[in-house]
Amino acid sequence: MSLTTRAAVTDLYAAYGRRDFDRVAELIDEEIDWIIYGPVQIFPFAGHRHGRNAVLEALGGIAKDFVLERYDPLVVIVEGDRAAVMSDVAFKQRSTGRTISMHLANFLRFQDGRLIEFREFANTFDLVEQALGRWIDIT
Amino acid sequence: MSLTTRAAVTDLYAAYGRRDFDRVAELIDEEIDWIIYGPVQIFPFAGHRHGRNAVLEALGGIAKDFVLERYDPLVVIVEGDRAAVMSDVAFKQRSTGRTISMHLANFLRFQDGRLIEFREFANTFDLVEQALGRWIDIT
Repeated sequence: MSLTTRAAVTDLYAAYGRRDFDRVAELIDEEIDWIIYGPVQIFPFAGHRHGRNAVLEALGGIAKDFVLERYDPLVVIVEGDRAAVMSDVAFKQRSTGRTISMHLANFLRFQDGRLIEFREFANTFDLVEQALGRWIDIT
Repeated sequence: MSLTTRAAVTDLYAAYGRRDFDRVAELIDEEIDWIIYGPVQIFPFAGHRHGRNAVLEALGGIAKDFVLERYDPLVVIVEGDRAAVMSDVAFKQRSTGRTISMHLANFLRFQDGRLIEFREFANTFDLVEQALGRWIDIT
């Protein structure tokens, strides 16, 4: 089971890394439960999505605003049908040309070889500052 | 190895949950490499710490500002000397009495039964808004 899960994780991240959204779509369950934690007013692709089509729309939303520059999984932990992946990631913001870099933490669960549950965490306060290109004034 | 790691994870989170910092200290390696990703101007206990004493100081900083109300690990993934834990957590802010709730993503590595590497992720934009008790104006 863990071997299957590891193969699915490797397949999924490699497909995403080479922008092969057809393969990504094949690896996503029709009934996926998906959350990218983050402020939707800045990152409209963030939030809760249910189902493969909604997730592909969110991924399309990311690609509309950002060009992937780097997606390097640093740590992959697999147990049974679950995995956790910590990655070093960089995107170029299309509107400004600025590069936004981050560490991402993903929690994944697979069912019959397809991703059925996904949670993404990032230091979103820092990401918003990078996306805006200025410090947030919190005084 | 995974069994030892799982036991150490269980021990660590249970000790933290019952505020047993002596036991937490015993489970932390002297040379630990520790990062809580977040803005230090709002959360002074965030950021990079090296060594057990520095980490215990950071934990003391959290306890100074917040009372733990809930720390429920939802997902624990263990493989070899590594683990990932996604938790449902709530703290009460001492200065305001407000409860701040969040999901936390932790990546851990153990060496000889002690925590040697730790990374914590949260939706920090949301946490800052909760801590301030108002929306962040990003216009």
